[in-house]
This record gives sequence, C-alpha cells and structure tokens, in this order.
Amino acid sequence: MSIYVIGHKIPDSDSICGAIALAHLKNEIGEKAIPARLGELSPETQFIIDRFGFEAPLLKMNYAGEKVYIVDHTEKTQAPDDIDEATIVGIVDHHKLGDLTSSTPLECWIRPVGCSNTIIKMMYDFYKVDIPKDIAGIMMCAILSDTVLFKSPTTTTADRRAVEDLALIAGIPDYEALAMEMFKVKSAVEGTPVRELVLRDFKDFNMNGHKVGIGQLEVIDISVFDSIKSELMADITNLKAEGNRHTLILLLTDIMKEGSELILVSDDEKLIKSAFNLEDNSSNWLDGVLSRKKQIVPPLQGAFNS
Amino acid sequence: MSIYVIGHKIPDSDSICGAIALAHLKNEIGEKAIPARLGELSPETQFIIDRFGFEAPLLKMNYAGEKVYIVDHTEKTQAPDDIDEATIVGIVDHHKLGDLTSSTPLECWIRPVGCSNTIIKMMYDFYKVDIPKDIAGIMMCAILSDTVLFKSPTTTTADRRAVEDLALIAGIPDYEALAMEMFKVKSAVEGTPVRELVLRDFKDFNMNGHKVGIGQLEVIDISVFDSIKSELMADITNLKAEGNRHTLILLLTDIMKEGSELILVSDDEKLIKSAFNLEDNSSNWLDGVLSRKKQIVPPLQGAFNS
Repeated sequence: MSIYVIGHKIPDSDSICGAIALAHLKNEIGEKAIPARLGELSPETQFIIDRFGFEAPLLKMNYAGEKVYIVDHTEKTQAPDDIDEATIVGIVDHHKLGDLTSSTPLECWIRPVGCSNTIIKMMYDFYKVDIPKDIAGIMMCAILSDTVLFKSPTTTTADRRAVEDLALIAGIPDYEALAMEMFKVKSAVEGTPVRELVLRDFKDFNMNGHKVGIGQLEVIDISVFDSIKSELMADITNLKAEGNRHTLILLLTDIMKEGSELILVSDDEKLIKSAFNLEDNSSNWLDGVLSRKKQIVPPLQGAFNS
Repeated sequence: MSIYVIGHKIPDSDSICGAIALAHLKNEIGEKAIPARLGELSPETQFIIDRFGFEAPLLKMNYAGEKVYIVDHTEKTQAPDDIDEATIVGIVDHHKLGDLTSSTPLECWIRPVGCSNTIIKMMYDFYKVDIPKDIAGIMMCAILSDTVLFKSPTTTTADRRAVEDLALIAGIPDYEALAMEMFKVKSAVEGTPVRELVLRDFKDFNMNGHKVGIGQLEVIDISVFDSIKSELMADITNLKAEGNRHTLILLLTDIMKEGSELILVSDDEKLIKSAFNLEDNSSNWLDGVLSRKKQIVPPLQGAFNS
C-alpha cells in the first residue's frame, strides 16, 4: 500500500516541493510513496515546478483508510478533513506542535528551522540518498521562499547550509537571482481576484477554542496593495463570517522594507492589537515582522490563553 | 536558563535513563540542561542507576515558566500538570502522537522504534558527540528493558544495533546476563504493597474523551501473582473509582512465556474484551502480547473510536 505524502490545505511552495522531494526519498529507501496536494498551486509554486520540469502532485482531498505522511503542519485545521480515519505514518514540520494525533507509533522529524525542506535535506543525508538535480532545485526554492532569502527571523544556519548544498547539486550558484525572479512572480497581484489573494497563503488556527484565520501576502513593494485595500478589508470581513471565525488577519509583508502591515477583523480587536502592542488608532505596521509562524502566531496564542 | 529534561509521570527506566543521557548530550552541545523526574524510581531503574554509579535525577513536579525537553511521551496525562505554562523546546518519543501541543516551534525526534534511548543514541550520532561509558550502560539497559531483551514486537533493527554499539562502549559484551539480572529485580514482587505494584508502570490515556488507565507488570514467571490476584483486582477497582476512570487495565506479562494476562474493571467491559477478541467467559490470556504501546493501546483506541 502506497503512502501519500501531503502538505497542508492551501498549499505553499514548501508543502508542494516537500511532498515531491519526500516521496522521492521514500521510494528510494523502498517505501512506495505518492506526492499529493490539498489544493491549487500558487503562482510562485507553479513557477518553481515549471522551472525544474515537474508536474503538479495529484490533487486528492480524501484519505480515509490510507497511509499518509504529513509535511509542513501538525494542525487538524490544515490537514485533510478525514485525517482521523487515515493512518499518519510520519510528519516533517517546522512549526509549533499542533493538535494532530495518531493512533499508532510514527516518525516525526520536527525542527525549529526556517523550512520543512531543510529537514527533508537532513533526511536525505541521514539515509545517505543522493538528491537528483531537479529535486535539489525545488527544495532550494522552497527554502528561499520560506526564509524570504534568509531575511526571515526563522532562518537558521541549517537553512543556509541546506541552500548552499542544494545550489551546488542543482548547478545554480546564483540562487539569489532565482529567488528575486520568484518573488517577482509572487508580487504580481494586479488583476487577481481579491478572494484568491486573501486565500493564497492562508492558515486557520485553533486558539484556545477560537478559530483564527491568518493570511499572508509577501511582495517586493507593499504599495501594490494601496488601490485594493478597501476591497481586501471587505473580503476578509466576509471570509470571517463564512467560516465562523473569531478573528481574521491578513499580513501584507514587504520583503524589501522588512515589515508587515496587518489588516484585521475580529470579535475582540482590542485583544488582537494588544498582542502586538498596537495602539487603538495607530497604523498597523509591524516593523521587522516577516514571519507568521514566529512573530504572529506565538503572541496571538499568548493573548488568547491569558 | 537551563532546560529541564523530563520523562513521564510514574517514570520507567526509559524516562529516567533518557533524561540523564539527553541532558548530558545537550550540555555537550552547549545547551544547559538538568535531568529531572516526575516520581519515584522503580526497583528496576534503581538497579540500573546504582549499577552505573548515577544519582536519581532531581524530583520536580512543577514547570510553569520553565523550558522543558520531554522524553518518552506526548500525552498531557503523562506530563507535568502545569505543562501548558511551560515552554516545550523538544520531544524524544517512540509512541503514538498524543495531545501535547506547544506554543512555539520545537524539535521532535519521534521514531517508531522500541525505546526512546535508541533515538537518543541517534541524536548522539547526529551531533557527533561521544557517549561516556556509564551513560552508554544506562541507555543500553533502558533499551533492553523496553524491548524485553528484543522479544517485544516493538523491537526494530535500530534497537538491536543501538544495544550492540552501546554494549561495546560500556564494555559489557554479555548484555543478556545483565538483562536477566535486571528482569529478576523486576520480578521480585513479594512483600511489595499491592498499590505500589499496580502503579509501578502505569499510564493514563485519553481515549475519545474517556480516561483509561493501563498498568503493566513484566515478570519472569507470571505465577508470582497467583496468590495476590484477588488483592490486585480489589485495588484496581478502587483506583478506577479514585481517578474517575472509564476503564482500568492491569497487564501481567510473562516475558518467558511471551504473553500477558489482562485483568480489568470497566464501565463497558464488553467493549474492552471485544477489542482483544476475548469471549465473555474466557480466560484473559493474550498469547504473544508483550507491548502495551503496540498491542494494547491501538486496538483499545480503535474500539473507543468506533
């Protein structure tokens, strides 16, 4: 019976490239594995897999009765809806430990690094399996995306070292140029429906019993959003209501200015603002904030638990 | 700030030896760590640490505001009562993934092997840190205990290989003789208060909202229990009521005959027996069953979820 290797809902590049890279490794060590995905590819991810000649992994939403290897999350809200009826055989992740549980012993490769693909690189090293050139390319791009070319505070020495190794294998010494090309694709928001933008990189969290949705858009110049900010605000208000969420936050991240503007609707706006020391009437610019995982989720979790 | 390395409540040899071995490794790689414990040592564990000249780790029950590294479990019921107020920085475990969560990214070294100390051995190898002779000795004993000298179905090649490496480092080629010595200590139940026996290796699980306690006593000859079986039955009945448990199971495991007798009290005895295909009036002997983790918990979990 094959194992399905899957990232999270609304997959990002780490989820898709990680599923492909990990499924290849599993097959190499004699465990039949199929990469799959829980949603459409973002323009950035499409750019990466086109660049290295891959097809999108199988789109598959239901896993009851199947074996699954989870990539890039441990949250039930981000996993397949029927995950409780599947057997989780393993998890690779770099986030806080969420509420996924398993019914049998499993393997978890979880590390506080910038990207799941950095950990998958460690797994290739552990099993002494050579990484093919094209797989090295997509793994490298996933790490450059998740760490925002090493600017994100989630970046570790392990991420930098992994990118350097993978760049050598992929034969792409100038990986910074490739990263900038990738970020340009990501920054092209004009003409995209607002809902598609909001959901492009969106995750739901369970915070002390409250459903909190957090989207993030990383661009080279945040001014691209100036003309559509009221549309974005209207859309997150709708999306909050549709999903019975307590709070919905959209982070507009400027990777060159290295900070994020936070737009939000919440049943308790005061609580959310207090989590980031924002005054009632201040602008919502958070200087130096690039990482949802490290700079947004923990203070929010703290605010909800207090 | 030091990290406390702690096993589970009612610590077994894996929890205690693992805390000592992992704290040593962490100190060697520059992270200050202190081994600690959540309860008294079993006679087996006392034998091991005496044999290799260690003191019992610090007895400490409260961890609010502290950093902790968890060994040998991922279940809230087995963790410190105030674990939600601590920061979990890492987990080493070999069980199913339980309901512990963290508020920040962490490392998890979880593998489906026979013993947490087998994974700690992998961590020493990963960090290229030499294992001192005495620490190799306690790690080896923990693996021999958890795998019942490789008889348990949880045993993997990784466990055997770890024991062989550790036996070399510890300078104990005849590790089987040491294991039998250890099992003799474990089998000496005469004169021990019944409650102490029941709680010697006892774990609570959350099964679909029900609290299920499962104790296990591994001995060389199960007939040592013949004269106290009614006392054991009376005591688990009391213990079930005291903890508002749905079910309380005690496994009497004969490591030579390689099977377990199951004694139990439950709000739904039929459900429990059906999980193990036991007839209503049959004896409760389960041939070949040595592992709570692999042969008792999964079918029970299945029965509670169905």
